[in-house]
Amino acid sequence: MKYYTGCEESISFKEVNTAVEAAFAEHGRGAVQMPPKVYITLPKGDFRTMPAYLPALKIAGVKIVNVHPDNRSFGLPTVMAVTVILDIDTGRPEAVINATGLTDMRTGAAGAVAARHLSSVRRIILGVIGSGRQAQAQVDAISEVLEITEIRVWSRTPRNAEAFAQCNASFGARSVPIEEACDCDVLVTTTPATTPLVKSEWVHEGTHINAIGADAPGKQELEAGLLKRAEVFVDDIDQAVHSGEINVPISRGLFMSGDLAGTLGEVVLGKKRRSSPDAITIFDSTGLAIQDLAIAEIAMRKGSGTDLPFP
Amino acid sequence: MKYYTGCEESISFKEVNTAVEAAFAEHGRGAVQMPPKVYITLPKGDFRTMPAYLPALKIAGVKIVNVHPDNRSFGLPTVMAVTVILDIDTGRPEAVINATGLTDMRTGAAGAVAARHLSSVRRIILGVIGSGRQAQAQVDAISEVLEITEIRVWSRTPRNAEAFAQCNASFGARSVPIEEACDCDVLVTTTPATTPLVKSEWVHEGTHINAIGADAPGKQELEAGLLKRAEVFVDDIDQAVHSGEINVPISRGLFMSGDLAGTLGEVVLGKKRRSSPDAITIFDSTGLAIQDLAIAEIAMRKGSGTDLPFP
Repeated sequence: MKYYTGCEESISFKEVNTAVEAAFAEHGRGAVQMPPKVYITLPKGDFRTMPAYLPALKIAGVKIVNVHPDNRSFGLPTVMAVTVILDIDTGRPEAVINATGLTDMRTGAAGAVAARHLSSVRRIILGVIGSGRQAQAQVDAISEVLEITEIRVWSRTPRNAEAFAQCNASFGARSVPIEEACDCDVLVTTTPATTPLVKSEWVHEGTHINAIGADAPGKQELEAGLLKRAEVFVDDIDQAVHSGEINVPISRGLFMSGDLAGTLGEVVLGKKRRSSPDAITIFDSTGLAIQDLAIAEIAMRKGSGTDLPFP
Repeated sequence: MKYYTGCEESISFKEVNTAVEAAFAEHGRGAVQMPPKVYITLPKGDFRTMPAYLPALKIAGVKIVNVHPDNRSFGLPTVMAVTVILDIDTGRPEAVINATGLTDMRTGAAGAVAARHLSSVRRIILGVIGSGRQAQAQVDAISEVLEITEIRVWSRTPRNAEAFAQCNASFGARSVPIEEACDCDVLVTTTPATTPLVKSEWVHEGTHINAIGADAPGKQELEAGLLKRAEVFVDDIDQAVHSGEINVPISRGLFMSGDLAGTLGEVVLGKKRRSSPDAITIFDSTGLAIQDLAIAEIAMRKGSGTDLPFP
């Protein structure tokens, strides 16, 4: 068994985007095993257990990831993760991987795959709601697949938006009011909001939205009316109904799983697509264990790892 | 984050039995979070993901364990396991533990807890069906809580039974026909059988049975008629119905969860007990994630661990 530090500095979004797209294609083919995430509630947060098997890559394992919103006060990330990889022939634990940075990258990559297939234009104004690690990962991943001409960022804390704009000056990023951020070609929402931030009236026809933030019951970033106007694609139907952007509208009877346009896997396979350039499309990302396996394969291939005695 | 090799050589069954009994008491009080195990099927076996949180011990984590019956031909154990422990206040991964040996010990301990509370006598003839690591763990754990005057062991492979008897000569162990092994005070069954080995007619009144082997759908060691004659206790109702000794009889309509006498947690708390000295009692063990957390706490306290860079 080896321990890998994750080595995300040596991994490019280009290769992660490709690997994650291939994983979504396998999901679209129904050629993966991936039970829904299991949630455990802790006193100040939660953790999720995400087992999966991706036969095409001959890789199986489990990601374990927490969400503790107050961690910044302890100098720790809100989200930390480890992935355990098992040898598919013997079940022997092969690797333990620090997946904290890799989790950001694989989520960014899902956004890039969705934007590449669902954006109605190739040169985009990118709207960004939120200014944390997930927001940056979305920019970095999407910039590999679409040409970003401008970034309009909004954050609840204006100085965070300013800092984000400075970091992304090469994309012409600037801090703007939220309505202005929503006036864009591709919008990414990356907050832990539990009351909708994005009003339907701010979003014009033809926009594609990556709804990244909602990943637990009760979380919601978009007005339910916006979902009704849009063609909504999810990464995984069971997970999205339970904990994605659609979970609150569904629990309130404002949206039904029958209203969904499809899964990202179906989009990647060409079975589903946006219906017209004027449609609003939404990708509801909850994060799939097979994304974690896809990036784990890269981290193990590129990293050297430290030997740990086992069994 | 630290890596612990498990250090089971420095852990006694006496302390594991105590810790596992306390964990069952918490389970009986409903004071744990423990979703059912999640199974993933691999080409030559499977692996199970077992998350849990045990507030009384302030410990949370996930055990990941495989079952690959052909592994012995590769010189590897059939069952291997790692446990990942998270800090309950921050969700930070604290420890990765080699849990292969610890899994045997915590399963042995569950058998000891059940035998201590459910055996009708304190000085016992112990019957043992199977002669592998689980059989040995049952002997070692039970010998801490009851006085073993004789062991009668049967294995499908006679020379394995002979070797087991030699290893346990201090308990007066000998290899016998299966009917004779079943003629005892406490019987432990530890095989991967999928057709029942133990006939009801071989088991006399007053016997307590630890049914350890069945831990996946389709596995069964005891005739369904024996279950009907007995008072059947389980570690966890959901897991037992899915994958314990009762899973096949239930799926065939020969037993119902309403026929259960209770859980081991209820027995430990004194809420449930054998009805009379003449009753046959059965403990159906599937293995709980809280047992793994209880022994992980010991392994972390006793082991020194190797530092791994994280996050």
